[in-house]
Amino acid sequence: MKAIVFDGRRLRLADDLQKPAAVHGEALIRVTMAGICNTDMEIMKGYLGFQGIIGHEFTGIVEAIDGRSKKLLGKRVVGEINCGCRHCGLCLEGLEKHCPDRTTLGILGRDGAFAQYTTLPVGNLHEIPDNLTDEEAVFTEPLAAAFEILEQIRIKSTDKVLVLGDGKLGILCALTLRLTGADLTLAGKHPWKLSVAREQGVPVVLAKDLLPAGNKYDVVVEATGSADAFETAMKLTRPRGTIVLKSTVAHGAPVNLAPLVIDEMTVVGSRCGPFKPALNALAKGLINVKPLISAVFPFEEAKKAFTRAKMRNVLKVLLDPGK
Amino acid sequence: MKAIVFDGRRLRLADDLQKPAAVHGEALIRVTMAGICNTDMEIMKGYLGFQGIIGHEFTGIVEAIDGRSKKLLGKRVVGEINCGCRHCGLCLEGLEKHCPDRTTLGILGRDGAFAQYTTLPVGNLHEIPDNLTDEEAVFTEPLAAAFEILEQIRIKSTDKVLVLGDGKLGILCALTLRLTGADLTLAGKHPWKLSVAREQGVPVVLAKDLLPAGNKYDVVVEATGSADAFETAMKLTRPRGTIVLKSTVAHGAPVNLAPLVIDEMTVVGSRCGPFKPALNALAKGLINVKPLISAVFPFEEAKKAFTRAKMRNVLKVLLDPGK
Repeated sequence: MKAIVFDGRRLRLADDLQKPAAVHGEALIRVTMAGICNTDMEIMKGYLGFQGIIGHEFTGIVEAIDGRSKKLLGKRVVGEINCGCRHCGLCLEGLEKHCPDRTTLGILGRDGAFAQYTTLPVGNLHEIPDNLTDEEAVFTEPLAAAFEILEQIRIKSTDKVLVLGDGKLGILCALTLRLTGADLTLAGKHPWKLSVAREQGVPVVLAKDLLPAGNKYDVVVEATGSADAFETAMKLTRPRGTIVLKSTVAHGAPVNLAPLVIDEMTVVGSRCGPFKPALNALAKGLINVKPLISAVFPFEEAKKAFTRAKMRNVLKVLLDPGK
Repeated sequence: MKAIVFDGRRLRLADDLQKPAAVHGEALIRVTMAGICNTDMEIMKGYLGFQGIIGHEFTGIVEAIDGRSKKLLGKRVVGEINCGCRHCGLCLEGLEKHCPDRTTLGILGRDGAFAQYTTLPVGNLHEIPDNLTDEEAVFTEPLAAAFEILEQIRIKSTDKVLVLGDGKLGILCALTLRLTGADLTLAGKHPWKLSVAREQGVPVVLAKDLLPAGNKYDVVVEATGSADAFETAMKLTRPRGTIVLKSTVAHGAPVNLAPLVIDEMTVVGSRCGPFKPALNALAKGLINVKPLISAVFPFEEAKKAFTRAKMRNVLKVLLDPGK
């Protein structure tokens, strides 16, 4: 089969790989659409030392199942990307994504979804509602990361909430938090990217205007992907307020955490999230992800796709294995 | 009156200061005992630029009250140190200690308690139960900072809890968290200081043995007073665990916050706390602070007292204005 492989130095399109098999309670999925995430770019810089088939955002059709329940056979699915050992204390608490022995699709110890076929445990799969296209459903994984915020903290409709960062994740966080009815603002550096959120009812502001305005927020979501932004987030959070930290960066920055103590702020680290609320919001039309699609490339043009994904004023780039 | 004054460069014992008056709803308090805190040392290094009478840990007797309710007149009291404007949103939420226009006894915009007399709003005062000596009750303020943890997070008796730091604050945090029944450990660098906590039933460990042991904790309280310790705290906290941050330091350290995101940890900044639970624990004999008293000096020997307070293997140094 064809797949996009990172060999530790560069990406290559392989076309002679063995099609995987459904074993050990897993499902074999024929990939129908895949999305490029910033984490894929980080992997190409050495993140987690991953080598193999990359990619973790996908839609597909279940072609085979190793297990008793066959109800997903032939269905269109998306899949949660973390696979725990199912035996440790964290897995038994339902925190498989924090299992120390976990594998993660296309990120850690498990071949990914930029391939004609991929495999995942059956329990990781969710059927895609009929009214969603693959182009929409492929956003389930990144949108779930936005919904993770609502699993972790309670946002009241009277809260002032700020999302820092107008990349894909920042916009998805803003579109998600808009549903709480809170007094929301999205801040970023790119007028066009901000406009994508504004067109769905999110008030936006240029980041440079934030600090001079002197507003303080009950909740600040830091989704810029920049180490420096944490300092900004502290300045913008009110006493007893909450900073949700979404950015993971390769290198830290010097930071004095004293404001956290003096103002008794809470910082909540936030990673992957639950698929069901994300799929539900997409299916009910509460969030429209289509304006975030900048381009769809066939697998053969993977390098072009990655080049495009890195460009300014580009949001989501999709890969279509059948195109 | 006599008082210990920091003039921006050095401490001096003044003996010709005007005795303050009870005005604006405040009480005049004759100080009977005072405690030296690390924050006093930080002030002498320039913390918050404070100049004036220092000191914020005290016991005293109310000599005059400007206000309708005179019930505290003549009573032995301790006093909460933050005084809000009483009009802003934070004050109206009961968060006077976070009021942007607050004064803080001996720390920010308000003369402190290393004096024969001090003043505070009547509402800040709490009567000292009869069965407590002044030497015990003077620990109310620092002990309240330990009890603040229990106001902010829920600690289950099944949690593994680690307190980092065997200074006064670390020990008081450990003695307080012991009351939750949690699986508690206090880690520090000073065997004698650790023994003070161990003698009240707190399991202790040398800090250097922590990381090699490889244990992970549900809750880690960082009370070392060192900027580097945050990195250690992250390594010792389990996925979805909580770091309570107590240390305020003048200068930050480079830190990569990615582990907070990957392991979805929560960091809770924690400052001053409620006096009532602290007084209650002292009065009921749940916490014995007497072993923490290293020395009591008269005001005249303030410089000696401060020198002593900075020494290794010294915990609380008290100042007695009547001695």
